[in-house]
Amino acid sequence: MQSTFGKMLKITISGESHGEQIGVRMQGFPANEAVDLQAVEAFLRRRAPGNDPFSTTRKEPDKPEVLSGIANDVTDGAAIEAIIHNQNQHSNDYESLRFIPRPSHADYPARVKYGESLDLRGGGHFSGRLTAPLCFAGAICLQYLARRGIYIGAHIAQIADVKDDRFDAVKVSKEDFDALHKKPFCVINSKAGTQMQTRILQARSEGDSVGGVIEVAVVGLPVGLGTPLYDGLESRLAANFFGIPAVKGVDFGSGFDAALMRGSQHNDAYTVDPENGEIRTLTNHAGGCVGAITTGMPLILRAAFKPTPSIAKTQLSVDLQTKETVELNIKGRHDPCIVPRALPVTEAMAAITITDLLLEDA
Amino acid sequence: MQSTFGKMLKITISGESHGEQIGVRMQGFPANEAVDLQAVEAFLRRRAPGNDPFSTTRKEPDKPEVLSGIANDVTDGAAIEAIIHNQNQHSNDYESLRFIPRPSHADYPARVKYGESLDLRGGGHFSGRLTAPLCFAGAICLQYLARRGIYIGAHIAQIADVKDDRFDAVKVSKEDFDALHKKPFCVINSKAGTQMQTRILQARSEGDSVGGVIEVAVVGLPVGLGTPLYDGLESRLAANFFGIPAVKGVDFGSGFDAALMRGSQHNDAYTVDPENGEIRTLTNHAGGCVGAITTGMPLILRAAFKPTPSIAKTQLSVDLQTKETVELNIKGRHDPCIVPRALPVTEAMAAITITDLLLEDA
Amino acid sequence: MQSTFGKMLKITISGESHGEQIGVRMQGFPANEAVDLQAVEAFLRRRAPGNDPFSTTRKEPDKPEVLSGIANDVTDGAAIEAIIHNQNQHSNDYESLRFIPRPSHADYPARVKYGESLDLRGGGHFSGRLTAPLCFAGAICLQYLARRGIYIGAHIAQIADVKDDRFDAVKVSKEDFDALHKKPFCVINSKAGTQMQTRILQARSEGDSVGGVIEVAVVGLPVGLGTPLYDGLESRLAANFFGIPAVKGVDFGSGFDAALMRGSQHNDAYTVDPENGEIRTLTNHAGGCVGAITTGMPLILRAAFKPTPSIAKTQLSVDLQTKETVELNIKGRHDPCIVPRALPVTEAMAAITITDLLLEDA
Amino acid sequence: MQSTFGKMLKITISGESHGEQIGVRMQGFPANEAVDLQAVEAFLRRRAPGNDPFSTTRKEPDKPEVLSGIANDVTDGAAIEAIIHNQNQHSNDYESLRFIPRPSHADYPARVKYGESLDLRGGGHFSGRLTAPLCFAGAICLQYLARRGIYIGAHIAQIADVKDDRFDAVKVSKEDFDALHKKPFCVINSKAGTQMQTRILQARSEGDSVGGVIEVAVVGLPVGLGTPLYDGLESRLAANFFGIPAVKGVDFGSGFDAALMRGSQHNDAYTVDPENGEIRTLTNHAGGCVGAITTGMPLILRAAFKPTPSIAKTQLSVDLQTKETVELNIKGRHDPCIVPRALPVTEAMAAITITDLLLEDA
Repeated sequence: MQSTFGKMLKITISGESHGEQIGVRMQGFPANEAVDLQAVEAFLRRRAPGNDPFSTTRKEPDKPEVLSGIANDVTDGAAIEAIIHNQNQHSNDYESLRFIPRPSHADYPARVKYGESLDLRGGGHFSGRLTAPLCFAGAICLQYLARRGIYIGAHIAQIADVKDDRFDAVKVSKEDFDALHKKPFCVINSKAGTQMQTRILQARSEGDSVGGVIEVAVVGLPVGLGTPLYDGLESRLAANFFGIPAVKGVDFGSGFDAALMRGSQHNDAYTVDPENGEIRTLTNHAGGCVGAITTGMPLILRAAFKPTPSIAKTQLSVDLQTKETVELNIKGRHDPCIVPRALPVTEAMAAITITDLLLEDA
Repeated sequence: MQSTFGKMLKITISGESHGEQIGVRMQGFPANEAVDLQAVEAFLRRRAPGNDPFSTTRKEPDKPEVLSGIANDVTDGAAIEAIIHNQNQHSNDYESLRFIPRPSHADYPARVKYGESLDLRGGGHFSGRLTAPLCFAGAICLQYLARRGIYIGAHIAQIADVKDDRFDAVKVSKEDFDALHKKPFCVINSKAGTQMQTRILQARSEGDSVGGVIEVAVVGLPVGLGTPLYDGLESRLAANFFGIPAVKGVDFGSGFDAALMRGSQHNDAYTVDPENGEIRTLTNHAGGCVGAITTGMPLILRAAFKPTPSIAKTQLSVDLQTKETVELNIKGRHDPCIVPRALPVTEAMAAITITDLLLEDA
Repeated sequence: MQSTFGKMLKITISGESHGEQIGVRMQGFPANEAVDLQAVEAFLRRRAPGNDPFSTTRKEPDKPEVLSGIANDVTDGAAIEAIIHNQNQHSNDYESLRFIPRPSHADYPARVKYGESLDLRGGGHFSGRLTAPLCFAGAICLQYLARRGIYIGAHIAQIADVKDDRFDAVKVSKEDFDALHKKPFCVINSKAGTQMQTRILQARSEGDSVGGVIEVAVVGLPVGLGTPLYDGLESRLAANFFGIPAVKGVDFGSGFDAALMRGSQHNDAYTVDPENGEIRTLTNHAGGCVGAITTGMPLILRAAFKPTPSIAKTQLSVDLQTKETVELNIKGRHDPCIVPRALPVTEAMAAITITDLLLEDA
Repeated sequence: MQSTFGKMLKITISGESHGEQIGVRMQGFPANEAVDLQAVEAFLRRRAPGNDPFSTTRKEPDKPEVLSGIANDVTDGAAIEAIIHNQNQHSNDYESLRFIPRPSHADYPARVKYGESLDLRGGGHFSGRLTAPLCFAGAICLQYLARRGIYIGAHIAQIADVKDDRFDAVKVSKEDFDALHKKPFCVINSKAGTQMQTRILQARSEGDSVGGVIEVAVVGLPVGLGTPLYDGLESRLAANFFGIPAVKGVDFGSGFDAALMRGSQHNDAYTVDPENGEIRTLTNHAGGCVGAITTGMPLILRAAFKPTPSIAKTQLSVDLQTKETVELNIKGRHDPCIVPRALPVTEAMAAITITDLLLEDA
């Protein structure tokens, strides 16, 4: 397996759900950048479970320990390495699943690819738990970007059939993000938020789960960031977002809704901003990106998350040893909806990707 | 600019819309593979414009000339290089646009990024014309895959508000693709096809354009292809698909619809195929991919295309020299809907990506 | 900093000389490969210091701890991670050097590049100590190669002005390597070895150090391994060998001596091996590599090592704060000659590089 | 085959010795950089054959044709592509060699690797002819570097047993390079040059060839360029230099001679330059590079070239079809010594590598 991504800023995620530790290595991050580790820990707490009835009851303090690269709250040029010690493993929950692949988990294809010795307890390296070290790296990038006037925010755009309002693609701002980050349940429209919570609790009470959509915005980007066409801004962001467990779709700006639009509706007319004399567009259906490079307007992307595959309801599977169909009952503690906890992960991934592109264009 | 993508199989696209030639270079393609150049040319003709009222009237014979890498219809191990001579350039159509960026084209961000000397006539290197050499590479990969029992097909899933039926995600087969490839307008449901054509012709008559969605399927894939998580199957496919001009969204399997589903609906239960004793899933909401590696079920992906940005209708823009708002009337010949011509491009891109992954896992 | 190399097999070296731990991560190593960890530890002991009067008296048990990727002595497909806890740090030896760069160490350019916060105690990440985790990775690759009939050996080819015999470039074999590995001082010609030891001890007694050359051979390679020209076999090996601290030159086969030869001498005539009917060359001035791909003959490379830069003798340097010339006396324990301990490092680096190339050509 | 190298600046070399054209593509070179194409052509003429009795009589005008990326003598941000049309092919000279591999050419391993269809006339893609497009790219980089105060020069350091003086590793300057570039036979010591010419002519008269060494210097480099350890300055330069046909050894600074030195001799003591107050070293045995990053002193590297493998003298080979030993007489026109014509190639390769590293550190 290879769990490294990025070009100038290379992120490596290591460890397994039920091993002793998980970790992250950031290669290529600049020296002499301030790091507020308390803010990093606060960011990680947004992802940590056990805070509310919408997530698993598994408790993880998720306190990162820095091994190298940061000295006296400043990056020193060495690769930044941090580990998080695992706790609270219930690996006996998983032993019975050794030869019975869980539907919509990687168990079966991973067994075929790697063989029997691969440790898949708790999902092994495929586990959503590995997004904790990702958030560590993302938190450092968010600080780096904020010092350059670039801000990132995300909200729950949809849970089941309930949709939140969308970001104003032209006017969305740091202030909107600040307001969202103060909310315990991160939506723009609180009424929609209440309905979403009902959907999640209802699924949980039925031993089931629900999916959803997250919308992410990035403001303050320069014009022209990215590489034209292949390996461009959208390619990099999409590739990295599909590395977040459970993501099954990514679109930018109007995205899939663009299919419904006429060119005369979708095209973003240019104008001169009367306040600062800068060129911008009247609308932003492009989501801040044309030809795989930024337009300077807010970057808007959405990521679709499938419902959590681990559910309490009885499911059908096959015993790989006997090749007989079996009924599967997954024990353990699981999120009835991964979306609320995935919010900081999407912000982290956007921050990492944008930082990498900025370093490349520097 | 960098226009290279792929890991083991590196594809480089070169040239500009209104230059003398465009080309493609395939590095890392295996030696001793048969190439049917007539089939390659036939594949390119599917992308070529001027065949019907739904596309631009610009005529391009698009006959590729092989410079190296293929001898006596067999790859010889050298990098495969082919060029296509441009014809029928109307570059004077574009001269007036030099300082007036066309909405939803890369003109403005590219000007800011690269400066004034960049040649953007006809979109320059950003032009959809550059998908012709991509199809050359894809056609060779399609032949390579077919010899290994892997087949790829695509259909127009949506134009404006009209939707085609979707592929049967469990049973879709080579025969379905063969049937589609015989149709002049590539849809499963002919009635939907007729409505789609109406939408396109209506937009054209109003000097406007429409968007759409393409659904691509790949059958015959082995179990376990791809790399877990980052840089995995979905990441690579998505990254490459966002390199196709006008793509604004990509999803896999149920994709964005997964947000609407319960886990108990979305999870694909395992079963043993009574015909061949192999393990497969009863449904395929995952679209053939879990944990970023293949499940062995058909790979299903959708790509959303924005409406063609070049429209005859008057639009607003800004003169970059005077910084005044101007009315823009784009001349030239344009596709009222890019989707029908993009079909072979999506098949080509899927073929290139899958070939690259197979070479990596070999 | 980025300390990752390799294409299919990515090796990442982490940690610093005087931190708590150093480590290695191997991404892309195949699953289901046996690993004899006792043999790995035995290989690491060949590099460990303190065994004889030719090396530093710093003692390091260098016992690696495997975090992931190996279960029940078999690789399981996950990335292989191992750490080695540092001991016996004398970091106060270095504090006085904070602003006085040691000649021929990276201190000065690293200070300019990264700034003052970089931790350079003991050389930091530049330290030769980081070759211990490299040997861990190399030992696993050596086992992988041996199962495929590929063997690697190295000997001290030169210390100061004393030269060992060279490998027989045509006939060198696994048996030669086995014999060398049994010797406490790894030379072919024992008389030369005794003279070399005298040179080292003499330098040590004078508070000085000496350089040398290591010759490495690889036998059992297939014909055609590598990529033509750029990024080929010699490029990859050379790039990786220059990553070994203190290496200042690399050549292949006759190498720099080829400059002295006529084409009629240097050209390796082809013949058919009467024993097995296979094609080989009568001589092997090419060192097993032509056009950047293997010929099937033994691969022969030499690496030149500069004398250990840390010496007891007084040296001149500059105080970076006062910009005054100062006399520098380096304390601490240092190797009077790095070459004997670098032998397993060269074998490890050759093994890692060859494994990477084999995985790419698979 | 893959013939691309570089990280931020990717160079792709295309074509074959006896095909219609050869070419180069530069991806990632900055926009808005002036290009003096006449100077580029003058640089290419230094490599062109047929100018003197020391090289092949094959005449090649080597006039590059720019396809994209340069407009009005300025780079415009698009990839720079140039082709050179081949002329004067004598491919029938090679037909008889189809199944008889030439000693010390890539013929045999390439046949095994790629099979029979590979076109190896004139060496195919392995031919030294492919260094012409490399010089095109290098010439553009040399202009880029010169505008930043970085200059590169090379001289023939050795032919057979005759050695030129070496560069003064501390004081070498642009003026030295200018003086060298005016000489028809590029040596520091003219007496040595005369002897070298005698060696070459003598070898030619005997149907033989000779090898040699080139020394390259780069002045004006900033302190701290490169990446520590793996993939550092020496690794990148060495990897790229081994991509030049016939290079069999590379060393930096004292290089292989460092083996002969004591640490007290080899270490470069720091001092403060009385003229400008900058820190430099009194000697430069390191060749301007420690820990894989630049020290700010002149970068000094040497590359060893094997004797031209194509010689008129009868050689032994094997007929791959009959597996019988045969006498081989190579016809065609060949350089009795490749070193004089390789001089600009080494300057080009150094310029390309340094430019890539500067773009990465930017």
